[in-house]
Amino acid sequence: MTKTPSNQLWLYDTTLRDGTQREGLSVSIEDKLRIAHRLDQLGIPFIEGGWPGANPKDVEFFWQLQENPLKQAEVVPFCSTRRPHTKPPDEPMLQAILAAGTRWVTIFGKSWDLHVTAGLKTSLEENLAMIGDTIEYLCSQGRRVIYDAEHWFDGYKQNPDYALQTLTTAMTAGAEWLVLCDTNGGTLPHEVTQIVQDVNCHLSMVNGQWSTTPQIGIHTHNDSEMAVANALAAVMAGAKMVQGTINGYGERCGNANLCSLIPNLQLKLGYSCIAQHQLHQLTAASRFVSEVVNLAPDEHAPFVGRSAFAHKGGIHVSAVERNPLTYEHIQPEQVGNTRRIVISEQSGLSNVLAKARTFGIELDKDHPQARQILQRMKELESVGYQFEAAEASFALLMYDALGLRQQFFEINGFQVHCDLIQGKETTHSLATIKVTVNGENILEAAEGTGPVAALDAALRKALVNFYPQIATFELTDYKVRILNGNTGTAAKTRVLVESRNIQQRWTTVAVSKNILAASYQAVVEGLEYGLLLHFQAENYA
Amino acid sequence: MTKTPSNQLWLYDTTLRDGTQREGLSVSIEDKLRIAHRLDQLGIPFIEGGWPGANPKDVEFFWQLQENPLKQAEVVPFCSTRRPHTKPPDEPMLQAILAAGTRWVTIFGKSWDLHVTAGLKTSLEENLAMIGDTIEYLCSQGRRVIYDAEHWFDGYKQNPDYALQTLTTAMTAGAEWLVLCDTNGGTLPHEVTQIVQDVNCHLSMVNGQWSTTPQIGIHTHNDSEMAVANALAAVMAGAKMVQGTINGYGERCGNANLCSLIPNLQLKLGYSCIAQHQLHQLTAASRFVSEVVNLAPDEHAPFVGRSAFAHKGGIHVSAVERNPLTYEHIQPEQVGNTRRIVISEQSGLSNVLAKARTFGIELDKDHPQARQILQRMKELESVGYQFEAAEASFALLMYDALGLRQQFFEINGFQVHCDLIQGKETTHSLATIKVTVNGENILEAAEGTGPVAALDAALRKALVNFYPQIATFELTDYKVRILNGNTGTAAKTRVLVESRNIQQRWTTVAVSKNILAASYQAVVEGLEYGLLLHFQAENYA
Repeated sequence: MTKTPSNQLWLYDTTLRDGTQREGLSVSIEDKLRIAHRLDQLGIPFIEGGWPGANPKDVEFFWQLQENPLKQAEVVPFCSTRRPHTKPPDEPMLQAILAAGTRWVTIFGKSWDLHVTAGLKTSLEENLAMIGDTIEYLCSQGRRVIYDAEHWFDGYKQNPDYALQTLTTAMTAGAEWLVLCDTNGGTLPHEVTQIVQDVNCHLSMVNGQWSTTPQIGIHTHNDSEMAVANALAAVMAGAKMVQGTINGYGERCGNANLCSLIPNLQLKLGYSCIAQHQLHQLTAASRFVSEVVNLAPDEHAPFVGRSAFAHKGGIHVSAVERNPLTYEHIQPEQVGNTRRIVISEQSGLSNVLAKARTFGIELDKDHPQARQILQRMKELESVGYQFEAAEASFALLMYDALGLRQQFFEINGFQVHCDLIQGKETTHSLATIKVTVNGENILEAAEGTGPVAALDAALRKALVNFYPQIATFELTDYKVRILNGNTGTAAKTRVLVESRNIQQRWTTVAVSKNILAASYQAVVEGLEYGLLLHFQAENYA
Repeated sequence: MTKTPSNQLWLYDTTLRDGTQREGLSVSIEDKLRIAHRLDQLGIPFIEGGWPGANPKDVEFFWQLQENPLKQAEVVPFCSTRRPHTKPPDEPMLQAILAAGTRWVTIFGKSWDLHVTAGLKTSLEENLAMIGDTIEYLCSQGRRVIYDAEHWFDGYKQNPDYALQTLTTAMTAGAEWLVLCDTNGGTLPHEVTQIVQDVNCHLSMVNGQWSTTPQIGIHTHNDSEMAVANALAAVMAGAKMVQGTINGYGERCGNANLCSLIPNLQLKLGYSCIAQHQLHQLTAASRFVSEVVNLAPDEHAPFVGRSAFAHKGGIHVSAVERNPLTYEHIQPEQVGNTRRIVISEQSGLSNVLAKARTFGIELDKDHPQARQILQRMKELESVGYQFEAAEASFALLMYDALGLRQQFFEINGFQVHCDLIQGKETTHSLATIKVTVNGENILEAAEGTGPVAALDAALRKALVNFYPQIATFELTDYKVRILNGNTGTAAKTRVLVESRNIQQRWTTVAVSKNILAASYQAVVEGLEYGLLLHFQAENYA
């Protein structure tokens, strides 16, 4: 290893390999390439790309990366040691990782004697030979090797001598990093601290002088809700590489969450991981990855979640506005997040006033409409509305109470008709809508792939001659939540619709027992709010 | 405090107070009562019920609990100290917590000098008087007092002398528990360890002998993803009360998650919190609470999540079946959870065989239909199906491939018609369905509150004469997820439908561009699988 400042850490991302083991997560090659390039921009030095020996999609991924390489990061293929009683050059999976054409490779081997004898069904000596041969072979082929000691902590607790032998074997064979893995996620921080100290002590005794021995890494899982805490404990005990995934994705309960690890290490403990301008990108990177893998972002995620700096309780809101330090452990901007004042059932008047201010409306707490807004909001929330995620609908409610809501159009009714013939792929949805615009009555109909798409199309057809700018509005997301789900299909439906124009995105909400009625109302409010933004901008121009 | 074994800990649940601060969570009084009784069964000794001085709904909650009291647990109201320059008997909010009629009360006060001067805008001396007066008054009224030292860790770091004065004031006034709160969630475990040790040391010096001083509690938040780790660190440094919430619900990133804390403390560190038979109820209690507060359970939650003991990767599945210890940090049954073999895109043949076995079907890996099932599953997953959460649909697919799927009925087509007149609350949905049962063609129509309810009703009307048992089936949940959400209302929709009969629950899945077509298919498969279960049971009987 090159000499570096003692506070330098190396991050190793395994979102594309261990992360994809998460139940419910699946990615295409194209998705993996987009994520790899984004992690590279974020300044992650090692990006584990996959296991080409086990998955043909991963072979293709490494080939495509050779054509369109990363700027800074090392992309790393992952593979097990050779199987018992084979020779490394004869192992197809080792040939596959050489064909990946990377500078670095990661090899995992068994540390726990039980896994050797009961899992691999081979001898403890043969397992050592498997580790040594594989690493030596890869080094002889010009690769730099990271060694992942699988089940390290459990293995060490059961048989420390054997576990340490596996590490010294890997070290002697040429591995530059020895990564201690808590594969089952059962270890607690005080154990991690002790065991990492033991390992460091043992390796420096074996090798005489610390500067020539390989460095220690840590790879943790979240089964005890300790993945991030265990990684911190290892770093504080001397580990220099930290493995984890974006958003903590991973098998079972996930891997160590890099989105929490990086700010803890860098902002709180003074370690150096990525550049400051990259840290400002952390929230955006977290949301980018969740969007690409098509999982809803965890709104309550530390540091990067939408609620991480959201203030709801009445006492908090007035205090945080006076002095953010009193209710925030870091400044949200340091990780690219933002403070939010939340509108909710519990919110007092001061929240409503703070929220109004974000829409450029200065309301006094004695203004009669301020209480009226709060009242109306609470009524709607009691039937299932939620304005926390639908600020455009809240703005419309507020403009309404203040007499500032413009009536761009009036809907008089709609009809939807769907017809499905069994065995035919194309279903047919037809929507008819009655609208009044500027005193003119319009009846319009349109078809769509489903009833909501048909409704949206009919409404746009009816309005576009009057408001040509709606052609630039787009529906970007459509979420459905069933309230009191215990009553099945007769339950109430809450629909959130996200729309955008060229500059902005906004979200609207509606609730109904009829999914189409709720969808329709949220779509209509989305168009209305878009028009409002358009005419506000025109008035300011 | 009564003398107890040194490994005894007191759990303090604040789901009903701090937990309800979570963005997106709201509960009725009825919900709160159901949760309180469930926590009582789980063996939680202290249950914080709310803040009656600040919230009228909480007053009502305590009154209702007086009529229908808990069996074991102490229910505790929460309140701040008196305001500056008032007298406790004149404080309406202190009268409100006395009116709650409980044995114990929790009072929170300021520990951080900055919060006193900048937040409360009063003097440091007055804050000490507020703490002392309030606790003395409540003790004089026969209450036992828990003192929550808000912002303890931040306050102690800034001004340790003053922070310690607030604690000794509370102790002298009669508080039996001093709870150190990491209100902003920014503290790391090594700091918690150090500070709790300092506090213990200081209090025993002040009071001469340990046995007469109050005991220490810990209250942590998850803003650094450290809530559970910090609580463990405090306990290992001597704290005897642990505050947290079920599922870690709470403001911003949540509170310490009792569902992780309890098994870590009890199964790994040997502390005693709840009885063993209660620990077996942990998973059920977690899901009960998420159901009552109407939030989707976190499938990846440690210990209690549906994925916490799920095995997906090919190498794991065969190993875990041989020896569970090799891939599981605890036995899932200890916390009332179960091991699951997951069906997914990545799964190899061995997963399919293991899954078939759970449906009582022994397949050999050379059975030609085994590969066919895997193939069909992968095809459907590539267009957006997910069988991980829809095992009934997977079973139907499997029976189909094996030629074992009975055709109870055949659907030939359906039509749905919805009509909404603006301003009228009742929308009208009408469904028509064509079905063939035992060679007989049936045309049936029904109305419903929405299109899916109408479809469900028409289908049941058409089938109930042939299969009277479907009257006992119920649709219990209906979930909609938009795939590739970026294309708005024209996106593909995945629908999950959960059904039940008297004994069992099952889930079916369908995907379509048309939300009604997907809903209809999932509803139909739900009925079909219910019939299958019925006739299987009959065959065995």
